[in-house]
Amino acid sequence: MEPLIQYIDQIVETNDREKNIIRSLFKVESYKKGEFFLQQGLTCRKVGFIIRGLVAYYIENEDSHVYWFGKENEFVCNYESFLTKSSSTKSIKCIEGVDMACISYDSLQILYEEVQNGEKIGRIICERLFVDMSIHITSFYTDTPEERYLKFLDSHPDLIQRIPQYLIASFIKVQPPSLSRIRKRMAKGN
Amino acid sequence: MEPLIQYIDQIVETNDREKNIIRSLFKVESYKKGEFFLQQGLTCRKVGFIIRGLVAYYIENEDSHVYWFGKENEFVCNYESFLTKSSSTKSIKCIEGVDMACISYDSLQILYEEVQNGEKIGRIICERLFVDMSIHITSFYTDTPEERYLKFLDSHPDLIQRIPQYLIASFIKVQPPSLSRIRKRMAKGN
Repeated sequence: MEPLIQYIDQIVETNDREKNIIRSLFKVESYKKGEFFLQQGLTCRKVGFIIRGLVAYYIENEDSHVYWFGKENEFVCNYESFLTKSSSTKSIKCIEGVDMACISYDSLQILYEEVQNGEKIGRIICERLFVDMSIHITSFYTDTPEERYLKFLDSHPDLIQRIPQYLIASFIKVQPPSLSRIRKRMAKGN
Repeated sequence: MEPLIQYIDQIVETNDREKNIIRSLFKVESYKKGEFFLQQGLTCRKVGFIIRGLVAYYIENEDSHVYWFGKENEFVCNYESFLTKSSSTKSIKCIEGVDMACISYDSLQILYEEVQNGEKIGRIICERLFVDMSIHITSFYTDTPEERYLKFLDSHPDLIQRIPQYLIASFIKVQPPSLSRIRKRMAKGN
């Protein structure tokens, strides 16, 4: 739980009473590699904060598309489903064993009310997510798959060894053989 | 200014004193068609709330890509640039004459502090933006250009007459002749 307390303390200072409220509202859950945090078709009932491990956000239609990853010190949620209490059109799957501090919708509302700067914490976390998402979306308009791969390497150098190549290919929206060619070209270039 | 007050009142109730604070922190600005709210390379210094008119979010590299639109009762900002005070990698241009209620970064911090539910307002607005953006991004992974066009028609039926076809083509990421073919196929189908 302490990585979450530290993360929040970087946003705003909380006193001991508030830290204890936060500790009491989150519950640590463990998932095995391959387990779902959220399955498409169900409603997302909680927000997780990853203490250890990696998740991938999927959309399953004829194919399976990975459009986002979550790692240590990041929040995990399908907010669209969580906020509107609607069926999720996406899945979130653990691609490593994962320990997460999880909070339900109702407990999150308590946090917003009981922690003096609870709403501020919520706002700033949401702003960070929004900025990350908006950088990702604009790269689809302007970047080639090779550039998207380079940006991925640049922003997630720690993940490249942890994520299977076919998932990275899906994320940058190329077929796995194209990613192999990109990597070969880059290896020759270096 | 009243559409903004009404928009905020749908999120949380504010008292007369707080409404007056909000009115005093926002300033109404008018832009002509073709004018920039924000130019690539400059820092985004304000958030706007559109009272009348339409804007398009652009990225200019070799080509010009439109990746988002903003209309009445929506907030306009490049949050990445606004929050980090960095140069904007995007432009926001008025594609109609626009009246906007605008607030600076410093005034927004005052709003967060002086309005009792200011942080809550900020959080909920950000959540709505995030959900819209995340729906848009996932459509790139799963939808054909035709499906993206249909979703655009579905979610913005009021905009289809107001936005030039070449900008809609850019938004759904096809060349204008492809959009013409999509529209012809749809007209035959109906």
